[in-house]
Amino acid sequence: MPLGDVDTPALLIDLDAFERNVELMAKNIESYGIRLRPHAKTHKCAVIARRQMARGAVGICCQKVSEAEALVYGGVDNVLVSNEVVGRQKLERLAGLARAARVAVCVDDAGNVEALEKAAALVGVSIDVLVEINVGADRCGVRPGEAGLALARKVEASDHLRFAGLQAYQGRAQHLRGFAERRQAIEAAAGEARRTVDLLAAHGIACETVAGAGTGTWRFEAGSGVYNELQAGSYIFMDADYARNRNADGGRFDDFEHSLFVYTTVMSTPEPRRVVVDAGLKSMAFDSGMPGVAGMESVQYAGPSDEHGNLNLSESNAKLSLGDKLRLIPGHCDPTVNLYDWFVCVRKERVECLWPIVARGAVW
Amino acid sequence: MPLGDVDTPALLIDLDAFERNVELMAKNIESYGIRLRPHAKTHKCAVIARRQMARGAVGICCQKVSEAEALVYGGVDNVLVSNEVVGRQKLERLAGLARAARVAVCVDDAGNVEALEKAAALVGVSIDVLVEINVGADRCGVRPGEAGLALARKVEASDHLRFAGLQAYQGRAQHLRGFAERRQAIEAAAGEARRTVDLLAAHGIACETVAGAGTGTWRFEAGSGVYNELQAGSYIFMDADYARNRNADGGRFDDFEHSLFVYTTVMSTPEPRRVVVDAGLKSMAFDSGMPGVAGMESVQYAGPSDEHGNLNLSESNAKLSLGDKLRLIPGHCDPTVNLYDWFVCVRKERVECLWPIVARGAVW
Repeated sequence: MPLGDVDTPALLIDLDAFERNVELMAKNIESYGIRLRPHAKTHKCAVIARRQMARGAVGICCQKVSEAEALVYGGVDNVLVSNEVVGRQKLERLAGLARAARVAVCVDDAGNVEALEKAAALVGVSIDVLVEINVGADRCGVRPGEAGLALARKVEASDHLRFAGLQAYQGRAQHLRGFAERRQAIEAAAGEARRTVDLLAAHGIACETVAGAGTGTWRFEAGSGVYNELQAGSYIFMDADYARNRNADGGRFDDFEHSLFVYTTVMSTPEPRRVVVDAGLKSMAFDSGMPGVAGMESVQYAGPSDEHGNLNLSESNAKLSLGDKLRLIPGHCDPTVNLYDWFVCVRKERVECLWPIVARGAVW
Repeated sequence: MPLGDVDTPALLIDLDAFERNVELMAKNIESYGIRLRPHAKTHKCAVIARRQMARGAVGICCQKVSEAEALVYGGVDNVLVSNEVVGRQKLERLAGLARAARVAVCVDDAGNVEALEKAAALVGVSIDVLVEINVGADRCGVRPGEAGLALARKVEASDHLRFAGLQAYQGRAQHLRGFAERRQAIEAAAGEARRTVDLLAAHGIACETVAGAGTGTWRFEAGSGVYNELQAGSYIFMDADYARNRNADGGRFDDFEHSLFVYTTVMSTPEPRRVVVDAGLKSMAFDSGMPGVAGMESVQYAGPSDEHGNLNLSESNAKLSLGDKLRLIPGHCDPTVNLYDWFVCVRKERVECLWPIVARGAVW
């Protein structure tokens, strides 16, 4: 089917660009001699997860138990829930999943370690555990240093849990615009991680894994000498918002290419320099700003409502007519993907395949 | 099942509050002697649509053909797509749907009227058509007056289309904070609608329907003497953002009660006055601001990421512990509902039923 026959809104992957991104990150990580465990919260798709693992990834990250279930039962055999899991129901499901795949999880609370141990014992499995430390994101995680040590000891003392290392993700650093700002934030995070690793070592506890990093900062963690397992996810698609970051030379952050698009139709042409498209709040995430318009940089998307968006053509020579179709670059890929059941995968303007987003809506 | 056993995040309806909202709007509209055609883009649920019609609604509005399909095949027999439908595929599906239900649609373009006529002729159905006029929302729609007349004539001249009146929705007025501002915006919109109705009448064209209104302004359209079919949708749930509007007395807009909630769990307690909950960008829409916390007005939800949100307790006496569950009031209900497959319907703290959100993701 030619791309032009795809009805809109639809979520497109440009396969050539996507494959270049997957390959580039795999090569980069190899060159640093560390591991890649890409985050599947970006794509929620078992096909993509298996492709990443076929190209060297040691496993994947998920953020939720239900997401991990969808991917494990889609053929992925190694999952880290890079998040805390709270509540008996979820913990028992996580333990059950450890019968089907290698499963790891993060903790930041002693009571939660006890509840996790209880669930693992009930099901009769062993679960790998990373202690999450707060290295500047100020979300979850205990303080680096002594608090991390105390929790690692608690894990080590649990029969069905294996202490596997530290989770040290600096989420806030990912979208700092300046290159130097991002580097500085990750240097600080790596310093806290190193201090905690050293403290644990001084107490005879080895950190097999020090995990973290995202698409905005991956080079810094990769070169830190501390992090040895990177969790970048968005690199496969490249959000419009990541393109607002700056590189070392002050230019646009362009480590990766945009490969994810929302395909949309011009559905009303009410004014000479304003048209309305059929993709709004229910077709894209807007938390990280407006989408770009692929191939039409001077056309501005503005004023989204649930099912509509305006394109302002006043600073552009573009001519758009009723029924024209175009590609929007989502500001934030992860929550955009979560709105769709399928990726429409396109190569050279033809649909090559559809990939199911098996963990769409798996938020619990 | 007790509410407390429901795993999170989950989308809850408080059935008592929901039923009071449905009843209150039905009575209000009856008292004005006009019609209610509630917008189903809010709930995307055939169960709710049928309940609204059982309580007097003449039909429902949808915003997309796929949404209309989901609801018609869920048992709804009267649907207005209160939006333009562009492209052969969609138009033929719309015409096909007119075999299963009474179907109406909006137009704002002469070429689109021809394409619609062609699709209706192909399928052999008659479709009701409203001409959309722009009464201040500056989204879709032709200008009121002559442009509306020209398009109405075009519809009248089409064999398989029946001119049914005007669509005159003032979407921008809904969230104007001040009562007087909202009233003024709707007075202006009603003036434009009246002028167009009169012009059409002078040319022998009757407007059976003048449609519009939303939850923020419904009283003004209802009392306008022009609008005779109201399209409010959010009144059943009542967004947190609508509660930021003001009433005539300057108090909080409280025509309706909050009945929709995102149930969430405290999943990390990293600081004495900051806890992390398990509902973020993939569990709620944030385009209209942060959610409220039900029963804890001085607790602030802040800093959402994909799967997390922070609760700031610094201005509250609330005590929240790991595993505690609470209810968030979404800032914007419509795109929040679109993230879930089911409503968990609760009465007096017990789950009474699950209602499927059949048009979840139906955005095309």
